[in-house]
Parts: sequence; C-alpha cells; structure tokens
Amino acid sequence: MRDAFHDDLDKVSDDLVEMTTMVGAAMRRATAALLEADLPTAESVIAADDDIDALRREVDDRAVDLLARQQPVATDLRMVVTAMHMASDIERMGDLARHVAKAARRRYPEPAVPEELHGMVRDMASVADRLVVATGKAIADKDVLGAVEISRIDDELDELHREMFGELLGQSWEHGTEAAVDTTLISRYYERFGDHAVAVANRIVYLVTGRYETDEDDLQ
Amino acid sequence: MRDAFHDDLDKVSDDLVEMTTMVGAAMRRATAALLEADLPTAESVIAADDDIDALRREVDDRAVDLLARQQPVATDLRMVVTAMHMASDIERMGDLARHVAKAARRRYPEPAVPEELHGMVRDMASVADRLVVATGKAIADKDVLGAVEISRIDDELDELHREMFGELLGQSWEHGTEAAVDTTLISRYYERFGDHAVAVANRIVYLVTGRYETDEDDLQ
Repeated sequence: MRDAFHDDLDKVSDDLVEMTTMVGAAMRRATAALLEADLPTAESVIAADDDIDALRREVDDRAVDLLARQQPVATDLRMVVTAMHMASDIERMGDLARHVAKAARRRYPEPAVPEELHGMVRDMASVADRLVVATGKAIADKDVLGAVEISRIDDELDELHREMFGELLGQSWEHGTEAAVDTTLISRYYERFGDHAVAVANRIVYLVTGRYETDEDDLQ
Repeated sequence: MRDAFHDDLDKVSDDLVEMTTMVGAAMRRATAALLEADLPTAESVIAADDDIDALRREVDDRAVDLLARQQPVATDLRMVVTAMHMASDIERMGDLARHVAKAARRRYPEPAVPEELHGMVRDMASVADRLVVATGKAIADKDVLGAVEISRIDDELDELHREMFGELLGQSWEHGTEAAVDTTLISRYYERFGDHAVAVANRIVYLVTGRYETDEDDLQ
C-alpha cells in the first residue's frame, strides 16, 4: 500500500517538474516573440497554454484520486496537498508567459517594449529562466537549499523590475504613454513569474521543515 | 462520523465567507485611501492583510486536519480540496487590496490616479465590492446561479478596465508617465481582483456540476 502511494506521488512530482519545463519554454518563447515582434511564436505560446492548464488539471485529479484511494495522513497527506498548491502556482506562471505573448501580439508589428530596453527584458527573461529551472530541480529533489536559492535568484529579478521602473519614471522617458503602459505590465509579468516560483519554493520549505515563509509580494 | 465531518466543513465554509468579508473591507478601504490620499487608512489596510493570510492558513490547516481525521471520499473530498483552492484565491484578492493601498502610500501626499479618473476608479471599486459580496454568498449557499452571476458582474469590471486603458492610450493623456504607470497597475489590480472571484465561482460550478469552466484572463 505504501509503495503504491509513493509511486503515485512520484508521478505527481514528475508532472510538476514537467509543468516547470513547459512554463520555462513558454516564457523563453514569449520573450523571443516580444523582442523580435514575432507573431507566429506569440500565437503558439498563447495556444500552448492550454496544454499547461490541462496538465495542471491532471495533477489535481491525480492528487484527489490519491487522497480518495490511499487516504494518506501526516507527511504523506501534506505532500499531496502541497503538490496541488504547487500546480496552481506553476500554472499561473504559464498564464504570465501567455500575457507576455499577448502583449507582443497586441502591438505587432511594433515592438511592445522600446528597443533600448530590450537588454533589460532579456536580463529579466534570463533570470526568470534560471528561476524556473531551479524550481523544477527543487521539486524533483525536495531540496530546501534549492528552495532558498530560488528566493535569492528572485531578488535579482525584483532588482531588475525596480530598474525597469526607474527607467519608466525617470526624466528621460520619451517613448510615450502606450509604451509606458506595456512596459509596466510586461515588467510586472516577469516579476510575478518570479513570485510564483518563490511561492513554490516556500511550499517545499514548509513541507520539509514545517515552517511557513511569508510570501511577500511587495514591489510595484 | 458524517455529522462531525459536515460540522467541520461548515466551519471551513464559514471561514471562507469571513475571508470574503475581510477582503471586501480591505478593498473598500484601500480605494478610500487611494482616492483621498489617506495615509493612515492605507497603512492599516497593508497591516491588516496579515489577518487575511492567517485565516487562510487556518483554513488550510483545518482542511488538512479534516482530510487526515475523516478521510472523506467522492463529493466530500472534492469539497475539502475546493475549499483550499478558494482560500488561495480569496487570499490573493486580499493581496490585491494591499497593492492598491501601497500605491496610495507610494505617491502620498499626491493622488496616485489623476483626479479626473477618480470616478472610474470608484466605479471599478463599486463593481469589485458587488463581486466580493456575491462571492461570499455563493460560497455560503453553494449556489451555481450565484456563481454564474459572478462571471456576469466581472464582465462589467473588465469593461471598466478596458475603458481605463482607453483613457491611458488616448490622445488626451496629459498626466505624465508616472501617473500612467500607477493607473495601469491600479486598474489591473481591480481587474485581477475580479478574476479571482471568477476563479472561486468556477470552483463552485465544478463542485456542483462536475464541469470545469475555463478561467480565462485575457485582458491587458
């Protein structure tokens, strides 16, 4: 009985890792679509989000099935419940990749972010990519140190978000209101992507140590 | 055994309704802080978000305890799992009220949104308030028709969000980039507040009918 449970739980964990791979690819491709004003890529990211949503539903269904059939208690129960919460956060990361793709599509063939800020967007996307890879690894390994590292990487993303707002609010902004609105939203999408990775990391910490981290979301 | 279970579940449901009351009050007060550039009120909304987070944790703990002790199956199990998902969405609504309060604090003593858009913010806040009241009621009554009504009310909020972006992107915007950035974020906070109410509503529909609604978040 216990072995069947842990086999099922491993499958749930594999699905969560697979979800991080999918949202990582989605955000990479959304960023490419944004920076290259590439409409087909934007469209494909938007369409592919359904697959992430479907996998999340599978995780939920599998978790509920597991609760019903195996009736786990204590740590085993916590692991199943935590998996459902993680699936919810990772799915939301996919939504944020879709939002970036939609911003690219909305302004096509114009770039949604002014060219001179492309370097900062590329930096945010690169940190977001490291975050999502670290998140998949921390889930696979149930690794508290990995989870702590995720918070640290997210600090880099927050710093870039602050820098982007510095650009937006500086005297030298000359790209008009439309670009300001788009840049505000896009920068926030990356920042929120990181917040959800941190939420997943906090769940891992809680699972392993029994301690809650506060999940602050204190930026703009 | 069944009666103990349903008593416990009623308590969870009561806590969820209490959470909607708290986030409703938080958003109302955050809006007042925003429109009146009222720093003490902004501060108190920000501080009070901890209480919402704490109640969410209680709901989670109670739900896990319920799963462990009563080992529900079928619909009873779905109800407990659904309650945890709802708590997550409602807590997030509280975060969004806190964000509005933080925007008010950030620009104090200046208003974060230009005066001539205060009417639109007031309208968004008023729709958000109807949404959260309807959400509490739908949870208390497990009411599918109430849940459908929530989606309809949210359409009004989306329409106001679109109008706000129309203002932002129109030729006549003369409030500068900082106000554009703040207005973009604040409008999005209200819109996301509504999205989470719809997510709760979709959970109720799923619980009662077994049908998933897609939880689209397709706006700016």
